[in-house]
Amino acid sequence: MRHQLEGIFRPSSVAVIGASARKGTIGRETMHNILMAEFCGKVFPVNPKASVIQSIKAYSTVLDVPDAVDLAIIIVPKDAVAGVVRQCGEKGVKGVVIISAGFSEVGKEGKKKELAVLKEVHRYGMRMIGPNCFGVVNTDPKISLNATFGKIFPKRGRVGFITQSGAMGEAIMNHANELGIGFSIVASIGNKADISSNDILDYLQDDPDTDIILMYLENFGNPGNFIRIAHQVSLTKPIVAVKSGRTSLGAKAASSHTGALAGLDVGVDALFNQTGVIRVDTVQELFDVAAALSLQPIPKGNRVMVVTNAGGPGILATDALIKNGMQMPAMSPATVKKLKQSISAEASFSNPMDMVAGAGPREFKITLDAIKKDKRYDTIVPIVVPPVTIDQMQVAESIYESVKDSDKSILACFMGVGESSKATEYLKSKSIPVYKYPESIALALASINNYSRWLKRPKGKFRKFKVDSEKVAQIIAQAKEQKQKAIVSEEAIEILKAYGIPAAGYKYAWTPEEAVTAAKKIGYPVVMKINTPLLLHKTEVGGVLVDLRNADEIKQSFEKLRSKIDKLKRGEKFSVAIQKMVKHGVETVIGMTTDPQFGPLLMFGLGGIYVEIMKDVSFRINPLSTQDAKEMIRSLRSYPLLTGFRGSKPVQIATIEEVLLRLSQLVRDFDCFKEIDINPFIASPNIHNCKAVDARFILNV
Amino acid sequence: MRHQLEGIFRPSSVAVIGASARKGTIGRETMHNILMAEFCGKVFPVNPKASVIQSIKAYSTVLDVPDAVDLAIIIVPKDAVAGVVRQCGEKGVKGVVIISAGFSEVGKEGKKKELAVLKEVHRYGMRMIGPNCFGVVNTDPKISLNATFGKIFPKRGRVGFITQSGAMGEAIMNHANELGIGFSIVASIGNKADISSNDILDYLQDDPDTDIILMYLENFGNPGNFIRIAHQVSLTKPIVAVKSGRTSLGAKAASSHTGALAGLDVGVDALFNQTGVIRVDTVQELFDVAAALSLQPIPKGNRVMVVTNAGGPGILATDALIKNGMQMPAMSPATVKKLKQSISAEASFSNPMDMVAGAGPREFKITLDAIKKDKRYDTIVPIVVPPVTIDQMQVAESIYESVKDSDKSILACFMGVGESSKATEYLKSKSIPVYKYPESIALALASINNYSRWLKRPKGKFRKFKVDSEKVAQIIAQAKEQKQKAIVSEEAIEILKAYGIPAAGYKYAWTPEEAVTAAKKIGYPVVMKINTPLLLHKTEVGGVLVDLRNADEIKQSFEKLRSKIDKLKRGEKFSVAIQKMVKHGVETVIGMTTDPQFGPLLMFGLGGIYVEIMKDVSFRINPLSTQDAKEMIRSLRSYPLLTGFRGSKPVQIATIEEVLLRLSQLVRDFDCFKEIDINPFIASPNIHNCKAVDARFILNV
Repeated sequence: MRHQLEGIFRPSSVAVIGASARKGTIGRETMHNILMAEFCGKVFPVNPKASVIQSIKAYSTVLDVPDAVDLAIIIVPKDAVAGVVRQCGEKGVKGVVIISAGFSEVGKEGKKKELAVLKEVHRYGMRMIGPNCFGVVNTDPKISLNATFGKIFPKRGRVGFITQSGAMGEAIMNHANELGIGFSIVASIGNKADISSNDILDYLQDDPDTDIILMYLENFGNPGNFIRIAHQVSLTKPIVAVKSGRTSLGAKAASSHTGALAGLDVGVDALFNQTGVIRVDTVQELFDVAAALSLQPIPKGNRVMVVTNAGGPGILATDALIKNGMQMPAMSPATVKKLKQSISAEASFSNPMDMVAGAGPREFKITLDAIKKDKRYDTIVPIVVPPVTIDQMQVAESIYESVKDSDKSILACFMGVGESSKATEYLKSKSIPVYKYPESIALALASINNYSRWLKRPKGKFRKFKVDSEKVAQIIAQAKEQKQKAIVSEEAIEILKAYGIPAAGYKYAWTPEEAVTAAKKIGYPVVMKINTPLLLHKTEVGGVLVDLRNADEIKQSFEKLRSKIDKLKRGEKFSVAIQKMVKHGVETVIGMTTDPQFGPLLMFGLGGIYVEIMKDVSFRINPLSTQDAKEMIRSLRSYPLLTGFRGSKPVQIATIEEVLLRLSQLVRDFDCFKEIDINPFIASPNIHNCKAVDARFILNV
Repeated sequence: MRHQLEGIFRPSSVAVIGASARKGTIGRETMHNILMAEFCGKVFPVNPKASVIQSIKAYSTVLDVPDAVDLAIIIVPKDAVAGVVRQCGEKGVKGVVIISAGFSEVGKEGKKKELAVLKEVHRYGMRMIGPNCFGVVNTDPKISLNATFGKIFPKRGRVGFITQSGAMGEAIMNHANELGIGFSIVASIGNKADISSNDILDYLQDDPDTDIILMYLENFGNPGNFIRIAHQVSLTKPIVAVKSGRTSLGAKAASSHTGALAGLDVGVDALFNQTGVIRVDTVQELFDVAAALSLQPIPKGNRVMVVTNAGGPGILATDALIKNGMQMPAMSPATVKKLKQSISAEASFSNPMDMVAGAGPREFKITLDAIKKDKRYDTIVPIVVPPVTIDQMQVAESIYESVKDSDKSILACFMGVGESSKATEYLKSKSIPVYKYPESIALALASINNYSRWLKRPKGKFRKFKVDSEKVAQIIAQAKEQKQKAIVSEEAIEILKAYGIPAAGYKYAWTPEEAVTAAKKIGYPVVMKINTPLLLHKTEVGGVLVDLRNADEIKQSFEKLRSKIDKLKRGEKFSVAIQKMVKHGVETVIGMTTDPQFGPLLMFGLGGIYVEIMKDVSFRINPLSTQDAKEMIRSLRSYPLLTGFRGSKPVQIATIEEVLLRLSQLVRDFDCFKEIDINPFIASPNIHNCKAVDARFILNV
């Protein structure tokens, strides 16, 4: 067998252990589904209490089955599962699918039972899906396996579907059936004790019957593997995922800005961004995207033409398309000229083209015939509001007749006709997806457009810089020796410098006179800060004074800062740190936080209110490629501030990119950092003024 | 008759002019619908070419009808409409509904025809709906009028529906029928030549059969009237509206920041904000909100409890609810204690409460019985994913049995059962709306919650300040005399001061020495600007230097600015304006722009990037109430910057409110301003430092 999981998805013989004849039981429904789907191999019901189940000879245990068994579907009480699995192992079964529930999903006791089952699986070298799952489906006519207990046999199609929730799995299949979306493989992975979504992604990558993969996810078992596999799969087959749990946990307490900014979900978003997975927010969007991807080619670009027989929906479509980043260019003069010869002058020959309410099959055919040849478009959206005087079916037929040989993507909208009118069923059967609302088309196109940009984006490189890691190791060792929880001030700056990250050095002063001398040496204007680790948030207490321009201002400032500090440790003298003032720069924040699932995330944002109030930040999972660094910066809403705003010159964006990559290397080289803040990092038009001004490294303890 | 429109919505006799027996014609379908709906009054078909239409005696003209006629439905060719309307007038008809198209919607020629029709309507004191409309419906069993040509007779219900697009009207009614939403009145207003949506809103306000009003709008005829009527209606009946055209026109060229920031749509958003109208983005959301409002009470607050038999949908619901600003408090200890006595320990006794897959009618009943008594919730959301082993219908019944006497709002979700399962039909018949996806519930609740906050908000007052309008009139007169397009610099500051808006005065200087003298008088630090109206965007060209602290800096700065100006008019000497530097303040922008539909809009935002890149601004239609001013400031995402950010003190927000109100009064007193920018207005913790620093008034010309 080619792939480990073939025993599960392409079995020649299946034992249904716990099959039953009693109505309303899962065992009965599963057995019934297998028979109804006309599984191409042999089925052996196993049940100690019955000799015949649904007209088929039943066996007391799997060991009694006379033939070889590839796959066992197990639906026995939870306490019996481990024993049954052991028998499967003895029998030489290749894979087991455990539908029975009551394992790790219900707590510690269940977890123990699950481990006992897993032990048996491993002992015999089998693979297992579940426990607590909904079953598996393969619609390949050579297999035709529906080993689930749901009420539905999915239509054959080219969509693979992995679901972590059995309940959602059934709901999703049901809707998919209504929408005309067909599946190749469906796998409900339940508690993922052995086989994970990653394993199934890996299987589907090479499955010739699968073009698109849908996922319903609640968590990630092994995010590192997911990144690797999903990235690879996305290059040839789009993955569309709903990941629930966006807000359920909320932000944890964190001691750095970066940490506080990283909610639970930024890791997931970063993950999907970096792997090309199309993330949708709702199950409905999952369908909307899946319908477009499974029935139509991926549009070559984001240019859309809307053709409608009703003004209102045309405007709604325009609103939604533009809002979602699509373009709606005007028709070429040649197209307009051609249309004006045949279409009523009352029509609007713009985009959207409103052919007005009288328009019927003839008008749709003529208009689409012209537009499909117009090179200004990648996608055509015909919107039909069937008036009483027009036969919907004829309109549907003329749409299909016109576009059947077009290489553009066609997504139709029939408003107000219900979900399964004859006309919409006809179009779906001809691989033209039909939506109820134009807004759904806009959202689907936007998601697909993002994916297609991801496919086209340049491949990033992973750079390796020459750095002084020795030096950093020393600083860390010293900090650990002194039981520091964080590395700040001078040492923090030293770490940056060791990794080639430009930073403004400090000079220290214990008296006003020393401060004046230091400032003169540095050159005015300067910044003066209270020099004490006691104060983590110096700005908040007025502990940072900027733009000091002469000796008088230095002396006054020294006294002003001294007066803020009343709790000096006995014997510790007050001091200040003085730095060159960097002017005409933009304050940015560069940081790292550790996600419990995804490990180190790198962060970039613009300083102050942009990150803290506007939450305008971007995260990526470490390590960063050159492309990741580029995108992190460019994806900010406040990005225009870096490219020159109100007459200011653009800052050195390449320098920020390099700093991100160097920080990425630092984080890869040392696993002792929990959080890092370079705040602010001044980005300036002058490369020599691009400098970290302050930094803080929080250590894992 | 009580209301002018009663002749249209509650007629005793209807003439259908252009009624026809020919299949597939609008005249035939309209006549057919009237008969099928069993209209309670008399119907008279009018058609010169037939003596019997659908078994009823037909008349050649309306003048031949032997009885009085209240309402005429007109479906004759466009060129015949005016003549037919004149006959209606002669006959003494009270209202006409003109379904015929080919009027103003098709251009100038059509517009002429429409005016001719309108003239006849006015001549005889009739009222008219249309032309180019879909017809009208009244489901009151005492009337039972369906004078439309659609395929659907809407269900009876308490929703009034006004639609500007006939096509959307039919689509929407169709969907509403599927969803179990019933209507009282449906009016398709077409070209609104006479009766507008405002008139119908006014009618529905007092209609005892209507509790909720849905609107599909494409534009506003008379926004002033809409504000007045919609505000009044919203106080007793919620209005839910889809307004299309969000992005279709785009921003116009404008010469002020405020103007450039005001896209087409800010006026509409402001309008809906100020009138309490619930704006939804899509037709689907219109239904989602309508289903909740028409079947359930408005929740008393935003606290939601989710009860589910499937983990996944529970998490999706939580994500969507929290994202949309709802709260999900934990159950009270008493509720948890009660539940633990009867519900399996495998359930999670949190919010969402996941009763796990085995849960059936018994568990739903017990749990809902306990939760409906828990005072921590305003809304309960039961989510059901029907597993094979459980009877959906029994679950539906037990949900209804439990909550039927509850005063909380109940919105249910049945996933994966299709739109019209027996169970969902049952619940809808019991006034419990059923959604396919939990996300729809979250969006609907959020919209309703906003409305209910609007209902509860304090009533604002319109303040009148003592001002020197005389002075402003003088400045304007002078500017007009000199053919100025704008009032800037000193005169602009004078206008502000005349209206009690604090502003930093200028001193002017033509030589470095004069500048030093001026700066000394003002007191360091100061700001120096190029003093020439040639430069509208001084900041962009480096024409503003800030924080100058001594004579040397003044002199250097003077020369620096002089060097920027190379195109001095002959004879015009270079000069600078010097102002006190306001420190520790937050830059804000206060402005006004004129919307072609809504007239003057006032604007507030935080200075610089916040308005220009982040588009974080709020608009309201003038005049502003005290409450409007409060909300404008508090609705900004960047609002926290005003309340004290990173150790800075909160600014004087009351001062900003007053400035907005004074500007509102100025705009009301003088209609010669096209745009106004007070940019920046410095908001400071110290009331004496809150000051406009620069202002510009663009005049209507």
